[in-house]
Amino acid sequence: MRPSGRNANQVRPITITRQFTAHAEGSVLVEFGDTKVICTASVEESVPRWLKGKGQGWVTAEYGMLPRATHSRNRREAASGKQGGRTMEIQRLIARSLRAAVDLEVLGEQMITVDCDVIQADGGTRTASITGAMVALVDAINYMLEKGMIKKNPLKGMVAAVSVGIYNGEPICDLEYVEDSAAETDMNVVMTEEGKMIEIQGTAEGEAFSHDELLAMLALAKQGIEDIINVQKQALAN
Amino acid sequence: MRPSGRNANQVRPITITRQFTAHAEGSVLVEFGDTKVICTASVEESVPRWLKGKGQGWVTAEYGMLPRATHSRNRREAASGKQGGRTMEIQRLIARSLRAAVDLEVLGEQMITVDCDVIQADGGTRTASITGAMVALVDAINYMLEKGMIKKNPLKGMVAAVSVGIYNGEPICDLEYVEDSAAETDMNVVMTEEGKMIEIQGTAEGEAFSHDELLAMLALAKQGIEDIINVQKQALAN
Amino acid sequence: MRPSGRNANQVRPITITRQFTAHAEGSVLVEFGDTKVICTASVEESVPRWLKGKGQGWVTAEYGMLPRATHSRNRREAASGKQGGRTMEIQRLIARSLRAAVDLEVLGEQMITVDCDVIQADGGTRTASITGAMVALVDAINYMLEKGMIKKNPLKGMVAAVSVGIYNGEPICDLEYVEDSAAETDMNVVMTEEGKMIEIQGTAEGEAFSHDELLAMLALAKQGIEDIINVQKQALAN
Amino acid sequence: MRPSGRNANQVRPITITRQFTAHAEGSVLVEFGDTKVICTASVEESVPRWLKGKGQGWVTAEYGMLPRATHSRNRREAASGKQGGRTMEIQRLIARSLRAAVDLEVLGEQMITVDCDVIQADGGTRTASITGAMVALVDAINYMLEKGMIKKNPLKGMVAAVSVGIYNGEPICDLEYVEDSAAETDMNVVMTEEGKMIEIQGTAEGEAFSHDELLAMLALAKQGIEDIINVQKQALAN
Amino acid sequence: MRPSGRNANQVRPITITRQFTAHAEGSVLVEFGDTKVICTASVEESVPRWLKGKGQGWVTAEYGMLPRATHSRNRREAASGKQGGRTMEIQRLIARSLRAAVDLEVLGEQMITVDCDVIQADGGTRTASITGAMVALVDAINYMLEKGMIKKNPLKGMVAAVSVGIYNGEPICDLEYVEDSAAETDMNVVMTEEGKMIEIQGTAEGEAFSHDELLAMLALAKQGIEDIINVQKQALAN
Amino acid sequence: MRPSGRNANQVRPITITRQFTAHAEGSVLVEFGDTKVICTASVEESVPRWLKGKGQGWVTAEYGMLPRATHSRNRREAASGKQGGRTMEIQRLIARSLRAAVDLEVLGEQMITVDCDVIQADGGTRTASITGAMVALVDAINYMLEKGMIKKNPLKGMVAAVSVGIYNGEPICDLEYVEDSAAETDMNVVMTEEGKMIEIQGTAEGEAFSHDELLAMLALAKQGIEDIINVQKQALAN
Repeated sequence: MRPSGRNANQVRPITITRQFTAHAEGSVLVEFGDTKVICTASVEESVPRWLKGKGQGWVTAEYGMLPRATHSRNRREAASGKQGGRTMEIQRLIARSLRAAVDLEVLGEQMITVDCDVIQADGGTRTASITGAMVALVDAINYMLEKGMIKKNPLKGMVAAVSVGIYNGEPICDLEYVEDSAAETDMNVVMTEEGKMIEIQGTAEGEAFSHDELLAMLALAKQGIEDIINVQKQALAN
Repeated sequence: MRPSGRNANQVRPITITRQFTAHAEGSVLVEFGDTKVICTASVEESVPRWLKGKGQGWVTAEYGMLPRATHSRNRREAASGKQGGRTMEIQRLIARSLRAAVDLEVLGEQMITVDCDVIQADGGTRTASITGAMVALVDAINYMLEKGMIKKNPLKGMVAAVSVGIYNGEPICDLEYVEDSAAETDMNVVMTEEGKMIEIQGTAEGEAFSHDELLAMLALAKQGIEDIINVQKQALAN
Repeated sequence: MRPSGRNANQVRPITITRQFTAHAEGSVLVEFGDTKVICTASVEESVPRWLKGKGQGWVTAEYGMLPRATHSRNRREAASGKQGGRTMEIQRLIARSLRAAVDLEVLGEQMITVDCDVIQADGGTRTASITGAMVALVDAINYMLEKGMIKKNPLKGMVAAVSVGIYNGEPICDLEYVEDSAAETDMNVVMTEEGKMIEIQGTAEGEAFSHDELLAMLALAKQGIEDIINVQKQALAN
Repeated sequence: MRPSGRNANQVRPITITRQFTAHAEGSVLVEFGDTKVICTASVEESVPRWLKGKGQGWVTAEYGMLPRATHSRNRREAASGKQGGRTMEIQRLIARSLRAAVDLEVLGEQMITVDCDVIQADGGTRTASITGAMVALVDAINYMLEKGMIKKNPLKGMVAAVSVGIYNGEPICDLEYVEDSAAETDMNVVMTEEGKMIEIQGTAEGEAFSHDELLAMLALAKQGIEDIINVQKQALAN
Repeated sequence: MRPSGRNANQVRPITITRQFTAHAEGSVLVEFGDTKVICTASVEESVPRWLKGKGQGWVTAEYGMLPRATHSRNRREAASGKQGGRTMEIQRLIARSLRAAVDLEVLGEQMITVDCDVIQADGGTRTASITGAMVALVDAINYMLEKGMIKKNPLKGMVAAVSVGIYNGEPICDLEYVEDSAAETDMNVVMTEEGKMIEIQGTAEGEAFSHDELLAMLALAKQGIEDIINVQKQALAN
Repeated sequence: MRPSGRNANQVRPITITRQFTAHAEGSVLVEFGDTKVICTASVEESVPRWLKGKGQGWVTAEYGMLPRATHSRNRREAASGKQGGRTMEIQRLIARSLRAAVDLEVLGEQMITVDCDVIQADGGTRTASITGAMVALVDAINYMLEKGMIKKNPLKGMVAAVSVGIYNGEPICDLEYVEDSAAETDMNVVMTEEGKMIEIQGTAEGEAFSHDELLAMLALAKQGIEDIINVQKQALAN
């Protein structure tokens, strides 16, 4: 039995609020239960220096947490003078996931930066970030199409993410904090709407996990991501 | 005539939402029109090293802006490896303002850190921050009283802030971005509920300002802060 | 009664030594009593990147303190790897004050950087810095005129600064360290020679201050700055 | 057909040289073909501050590359003032993998730090690092047992790692640089000697990968890691 | 012929002003011609952590240059976020030189930090710094003796420094900037009053130098340092 | 008697292995007894910005130590966020020494960077680095000649380095760690194959050293460097 009473394969209530803030070309508040992340997509008519003249665009991401998004206050990374390893790891994951959804040559020499800032954390901030960032990215792309900045839609399809894990010996989907901190294994899966995998990152926190456990977790992830992509699509349909 | 149609002495619609996020001892979303700031107050049972053994507490503040809180994206300070001069200046101002509201000896060797993170900026982010931070601070103090961490209320009274300026030759109150960027003079005033001044920071952006203009701005500030403190009190009364 | 025996409205003996060091286009040692600051103005035939092609110049300032300018040694900022918040705040104030004295369009795409380095501190280092920096700036401008780097004098008039405060319940002018550290309120005022205000930054250290106290402090500041501008003009007349 | 003529399931020739340098408690040169990494394990009789008094030890890792380990010179991270995101990500992966091999409570309040420094890179530096670091870790543990620093062996079993990927549409094992840079999918797998998984990190570089491709890659990884653990064991037997 | 008309073995006019600033236990302005350095010695009743409990004291030094001490403005090291290699090299040299003059065990667990800040540079800033720092150090030691912080004088004798070089094929002593920038060889020598060497750092800027040239430079250095130590002693006698 | 049984004038067994790693234009493992340094020379077809358009090339060097090259582990400089003073000092010395061997105008607007990374330290890492770096530099220059990147050989001759010191009152050559840490004086000498000096850096660790001791050390250095240059030449002849 999960603390929330959810079934093993059940994701938390997911809410995606578009146009959450005023200035960004895409701006989304994504909520996976009590995990809340602001995702803003910013369009720039240039690319990083190392890409100049190569005829393709770029999609990147940055991740942050407000100092008191968590149970106890974390030191502000801007004040400590650097981003920690966990932050780096997460923002690289988000960026790779988003790039998998975009044809960078169709984007042309333009860049979209998606900022994911966690305002409240209850487990799964990276998967919520990817899920919300994807919607903000679509809004930014639509903005570019409307403004004539791109002729053709570079979107290859939707991408979403969910965490799965082994908790009390059972595979479960979309772990919240109390589950996550007690889980034996924690895995983040990023998939396309066709059910193909973009990223899979599994870590044994305590005991190593078996091939069968991996398969069970993957099955849960696949179903969870389908549910999540439906929420994305409904949000975009409004 | 102001772009928003407001009168010269009229502050924007101000909303203060308490318990905006789940974990902090005080958590407030403050909105001055389209300027939106999350203010969280975190309680710690220790003080900075330089205060140890002095029998008094500490109140401090940190300030940040999400990269896309503004019209164009700003570089994330955590990524650039340091807080800019403007950030430093603002967070020092917030901290001094809050300390003016608290008897640090009554607080004892405990610390309250208030984080002000701007999620949407439309002028006046520092005065909105002070105003919201004050409410979060009161909630944190009440938490400490309930938990028995302090015996006596260290609160000396409410504090709030507003910006005033000279715009098109006329003094106005609570400038929004379009006014702020065109103003000849920009002044931030922090006052107690008794109408006494805690901080006054005025800057001539273009032409120097006269003594009479200063007096006119101060009169507007006094009235605006009275209005704002009423909003604070109503929020705390709920 | 003030520790120095000065009257409430009396500034310290002020000395301005021009051509204090050899290389800078303007080089001033300014002394407000025992507060001593070296101010050098450096001319560059270019502007920061963000100003390129806008047809205007720039005036900026940096501030530092020798580690043992103070009673006990402070850590060297270059060794600690960053400028502190107080340093940032002060150098931004100096820079804004100086820019108020210069028509940046007349200056053309050229930059003047004024470095203010405190070699001995006894209160009022920021107001002494502004006062000395102003004279160094004039010397640098005159250098540019002589060299034909500018056709027309971009100087709009003299600017100077003084601190005022409430000490033992009385408003006083130009606080030295023992007064400053005991003052209830500390205010820095920057004015033009016409008596108009460029910057006003007042902080209640202990008790909040009243409107009447503010007016009393402003009156002292006005008179003090007049005296100081006279010293500046005499120094420039030599 | 692979550029090296290897079969799809064939790892490169792997060499593990123990006691490669003189000072470290464990010191290994690991070679996966032309990828060469020096792994040194350093023992300390203390733990990081956040672990003090918890009665358990810690195993951590740091990763670096000599600037010219690669085809073109990379900027030295010490000179640029920070470790990049890739470095952070890799050293966190190595550390988690090693911790999975050690019972931290049996280790007691002592710490082992394994440094992995790549002197020549030809793909798979992170999996070579984990593989070599594991052997250095065993040597350090044996050193501690001999010195009486621990009573009981905290080792839970061997751990090794290999990369797998989809190259020209085919799953292959232990990618070298030319394969890696052309692969559609790149996955790093860390396993115990019982064939259970500790870490799995798969990334679609171009096209997303299917469930079947994942299974095929996992099968290759399992076999490859078995081969690699044999090499580790032979090295330790000498 | 030297640009200044000096003889090859002639040092510049050297002035040592004690008690130059008010707060430091030793404070000296040292002038070697147009090179001017403020040297302050600060006493602390503790030692760095790595020396605690070893029953000995420490003498260290820091070096800086005001941004416009030189012909063109250098970037402020505090603003650029780190001390450059040249600064590091010089402050390490000064510190080693001063430690050679002090019996650290007699000093006990106390520390003296000497800050050398160049306010005007015309060649030889490091040798002027060592020379002035030595006098500030003596004043700080005398302060400690007067205050009873040390029972016995830890001073082992005077130390001073001079630069020598090969200029236009001739060895000369105490190079000023125009000589230094054209010299084929540049050597800094630090000696005790007994004429023994503490530091010798010679660098061929253009052509390598011969053994005979080295001997000629050393002879000049010996004589120059004797002259300089006389100036130190006269300054201390006042 | 020396701990190793060496004569006073005897250098350690020196081994120079060329083509030690695969990618660099010059790659050398240099061993002075148990001191082992990897030296790689990297060629770039550009120069630093401040040299652009001056028609000359540049040779520079960077130095690092693997964290466990030494008896106890040193903090990784990349992790601590800056290179220490010792590192800076050494890499500047290496770079100046190498530049003395090259005609930068003949090199043209191209740059060679030599990285010296100590994998095992037993005293004399800077002199071993210079010695090995010189060979790597020659290989890089030969690479450039072969590729037609330079028409003429810019090499002016070989350069090598050795440490000398006073140990137990006697001058000795090429100190290993146990000697170095007990030496009264430590001197590093860099010479050309003609026996002329490029760099001489002597430091009295305990007692100051006399002119005669200096001469004795220099004589040892000259002979040692001759021996070392022979080893360099043999290595290059293979």
